Amino acid sequence: MEEHKTEETGQMEDKATTHQTSKRDDNTVFIGKKGTMGYVLAVVTQFNNGAEHVSVKARGKLISRAVDVVEIVRHRFMPEAKVGSIDISTEELMSEDGSKNKVSSIEIKIQR
Amino acid sequence: MEEHKTEETGQMEDKATTHQTSKRDDNTVFIGKKGTMGYVLAVVTQFNNGAEHVSVKARGKLISRAVDVVEIVRHRFMPEAKVGSIDISTEELMSEDGSKNKVSSIEIKIQR
Repeated sequence: MEEHKTEETGQMEDKATTHQTSKRDDNTVFIGKKGTMGYVLAVVTQFNNGAEHVSVKARGKLISRAVDVVEIVRHRFMPEAKVGSIDISTEELMSEDGSKNKVSSIEIKIQR
Repeated sequence: MEEHKTEETGQMEDKATTHQTSKRDDNTVFIGKKGTMGYVLAVVTQFNNGAEHVSVKARGKLISRAVDVVEIVRHRFMPEAKVGSIDISTEELMSEDGSKNKVSSIEIKIQR
């Protein structure tokens, strides 16, 4: 029976790493396989740089890490911050052998 | 540095299992460590029994499974269903040695 794939692929990690370390004008932090606190720092840094809102995005098993990041940001570093919209969706990833895998994703918006 | 714990404890599994198999009048499905499709079936069954809305709850690493369950329910079994509010929070769990662990949790409401 077809199931959602939740493996953390190398592809996802690369993408997340690239996005996390590059400053983007749309204020998005992609969660990858690094430690949770690194992404917490990335979010707090974007707010310190003047962002009014930051989106935390993750796919597959990294979704739970995204929730951890948002909860740590607002409980420990930015008690005045609020969680805005939370959206979940399904993305189709093409694997190297040409087959398609469905994977769940989440986007959590934090507002200053 | 203190971090959110995301281990799946036996305690959580027991609780989830109990809730998943017992019919509750508040229409909640707790995600545990069983296969994803079992929880999909639990949600669909509640709707078939007349529920107007079902809440899917999970903690820690099981949060990503909760998102999978909701996505599979609405894409494969109930295309007319809508995702209602999604709430994330932090719960404090007392471990056996008396120490407190913080763990993230999610509640996703699905509406018929």
